[in-house]
Amino acid sequence: MLARPGNAGLHRVVIVGCGFGGLAAARALGRAGAQVTVVDRTNHHLFQPLLYQVATAGLAAPAIAAPIRHILRRFRSVTVLMAEVIGIEPAARRVILDGGDVLEYDYLVLAAGSTHGYFGHDEWAHAAPGLKTLDDAIDIRNRVLLAYEHAEREPDAVRRIPCLTFVVVGGGPTGVELAGTLAEIARHTLREEFRRFDSRAARVILLEGGDRVLPGFPRDLSEKARAQLQRLGVEVRTNALAKHIDEHGVDLGGERIDARTVLWAAGVAASPLAQALGVSLDRAGRVRVEPDLSVPGRPEIFVIGDLAAVTDGDRQVPGVAQAAKQMGHRAAKNILRRARGEPTRPFRYRDYATLATIGRDSAVAVVGRLKLSGLVAWLFWVFLHIFFLIGFRNRIVVMFDWGWAYVTFQRYARIAMTGRSERSRVKAAPPSARTT
Amino acid sequence: MLARPGNAGLHRVVIVGCGFGGLAAARALGRAGAQVTVVDRTNHHLFQPLLYQVATAGLAAPAIAAPIRHILRRFRSVTVLMAEVIGIEPAARRVILDGGDVLEYDYLVLAAGSTHGYFGHDEWAHAAPGLKTLDDAIDIRNRVLLAYEHAEREPDAVRRIPCLTFVVVGGGPTGVELAGTLAEIARHTLREEFRRFDSRAARVILLEGGDRVLPGFPRDLSEKARAQLQRLGVEVRTNALAKHIDEHGVDLGGERIDARTVLWAAGVAASPLAQALGVSLDRAGRVRVEPDLSVPGRPEIFVIGDLAAVTDGDRQVPGVAQAAKQMGHRAAKNILRRARGEPTRPFRYRDYATLATIGRDSAVAVVGRLKLSGLVAWLFWVFLHIFFLIGFRNRIVVMFDWGWAYVTFQRYARIAMTGRSERSRVKAAPPSARTT
Repeated sequence: MLARPGNAGLHRVVIVGCGFGGLAAARALGRAGAQVTVVDRTNHHLFQPLLYQVATAGLAAPAIAAPIRHILRRFRSVTVLMAEVIGIEPAARRVILDGGDVLEYDYLVLAAGSTHGYFGHDEWAHAAPGLKTLDDAIDIRNRVLLAYEHAEREPDAVRRIPCLTFVVVGGGPTGVELAGTLAEIARHTLREEFRRFDSRAARVILLEGGDRVLPGFPRDLSEKARAQLQRLGVEVRTNALAKHIDEHGVDLGGERIDARTVLWAAGVAASPLAQALGVSLDRAGRVRVEPDLSVPGRPEIFVIGDLAAVTDGDRQVPGVAQAAKQMGHRAAKNILRRARGEPTRPFRYRDYATLATIGRDSAVAVVGRLKLSGLVAWLFWVFLHIFFLIGFRNRIVVMFDWGWAYVTFQRYARIAMTGRSERSRVKAAPPSARTT
Repeated sequence: MLARPGNAGLHRVVIVGCGFGGLAAARALGRAGAQVTVVDRTNHHLFQPLLYQVATAGLAAPAIAAPIRHILRRFRSVTVLMAEVIGIEPAARRVILDGGDVLEYDYLVLAAGSTHGYFGHDEWAHAAPGLKTLDDAIDIRNRVLLAYEHAEREPDAVRRIPCLTFVVVGGGPTGVELAGTLAEIARHTLREEFRRFDSRAARVILLEGGDRVLPGFPRDLSEKARAQLQRLGVEVRTNALAKHIDEHGVDLGGERIDARTVLWAAGVAASPLAQALGVSLDRAGRVRVEPDLSVPGRPEIFVIGDLAAVTDGDRQVPGVAQAAKQMGHRAAKNILRRARGEPTRPFRYRDYATLATIGRDSAVAVVGRLKLSGLVAWLFWVFLHIFFLIGFRNRIVVMFDWGWAYVTFQRYARIAMTGRSERSRVKAAPPSARTT
């Protein structure tokens, strides 16, 4: 118990952000009975590894999210607030919320995560949306579905090409997942549903600036991933840097790809909240934390997850769910230790497995010294992702959805939700082409 | 076959709107091999009777919708276009789409349905949204979820009251369903999830202008519905007319109800497309059609569903799904008859059952001469709604979701999707109240 007799008072912990890191910290502190306030700008914890499936119409949004206050309801000392943090005052130990609310803290866990970064080209954001939130996923889903709808209304075969060209920028795990799934949609899901074109004619192009996809993986697995992508129908272009992106396509410098749909999976940027701490940040905007995850000179502030630049030994800890979870757990333990007057312990990263899925029966994985690819890696990926989903109910729903999709090649959530605004981009088709 | 030898050419049928009526017509004409173009402004057919469940976070949006082109994919002579109809030119037999596309037709089936009507008070729409589309449902879901989130941030108990007051205007089936479910959310779903208040303190008020709820039902069933609503915790106010609605509540003339959340279920208005036909409309803006559902003086135009004012004998055919379906079928048959040079047949409405659900174990139903209420009516309602859902897969999903919700009292889809914009309404709470 943090609030035990002998303490000067109740120790108040504020956790900003309830992704994998923040949730792990909240659970560990809640279990210990600490006075915790969790602040998140959404009402839900999001299982981000499956977000691309919402974006590609395979899952409904609620299947990969759970209300934060429902997850934490049993911890009576934990309060959940849906709010945006607009400032942090480390000297005064205060967090400022939108609307002006102030939360005072004895310990702060900053787990605000990252967003997509456009390498200084924020003007590309409108033309090439990234994938971080459920709203992003629904936006991307709409764009993909409406591109096909637009193509069906376009009588001119040449002008139809950009509608049926999908470019994914960035060959990391998210880019590979998106490209593989988009190819599956074109080849299988939408077959025979259009009258003016064959959906299998759609092109899916994956652009990667480096010399291989999945650069975080061993080189031979990158090659296997490339082969699997190509088998699914994806055009993989490495050493291909986007020089310019607008709503009509991508400029590669010397080459132009006309595409109505461009998706951004190339860069992440740390939450700007890191700057409020007034400490040294790395190039990606992350906080260089002490080995115990606290901020240099601010032992009461812990930074975890994508927002923390942490090395374990000589290896940079990657920005993945399992690392964030482990950091959240370590930060909570260190807060409890400090409250008891004990020394904190350094963070140790345990890398159980690194996986990336590519598409039907296709994935790559590194599990300890084992390298897997193809069906075996894919089954392992499916098993792990269902296992780690929050909520027994979501596990059943996702398992059912996947089983159904596997057998039928259909995608459950092909529902464009905000068609009206998007449809203004649809152009006119001459009457005769349609009706005679 | 409509396009048989001997005809002057292919008969081109355009169907505007793919609700229950339009879909029934498209299927019947597609089965006969007619050249059909279906135009809808969304990409999905919506199972509207369950829309209130999406609005109250019980179902995800894709569970009650299916892509129109997927439903109709087997009919090779049917083309589906996602487009908004912006004009009809009956003399030229042309339909004008957004963007300027023109569809020429030999036969037109107008099935554009209805939207919510505010009895001349369109300025109420922003404060009291109605429920007709999936976007509406997500908007209402956000408002309901965020009202509770707002309450948790409000330290002042008196100012918290409007956050926890939910007013439903209109005591027809939709209003009764919404009110009953909102009461269940307050009493069961959200219990123990908030720290500043008990969700059971929330008030749900159902306002009905007439002297009883469910005016379309026999008087004794209205009384039973009222009793069931009250048992669920709904305050039922009959003879209560809203004089004014704004974002802070409802004015009843002499009495004011302060409420952050007001939902509109009081009126429907026919689609303005009816006016383009240039024929006589009834008070609700619907087209007074001939007995065979064609428009007077325009035997090639058929109007069906909520847009058609039809009497069968001396009874006005109600604006319900089964009536729209039957009209769609009759209109298609009459088009096929006319194309063969045969006389059309008049529409006959077969009222199999009229149902309204109220909440857990609660419903009323009229089946032939039988009147049911309570658990029996509710089970009948559940069975019918699963049976008539489009798509085997959706049936399984909804069955599972309902079974789960029934056992756990939980609601699957408590995910606020557009929190950022809505949250600007959240007001400040003094720091001390939260953290000390």
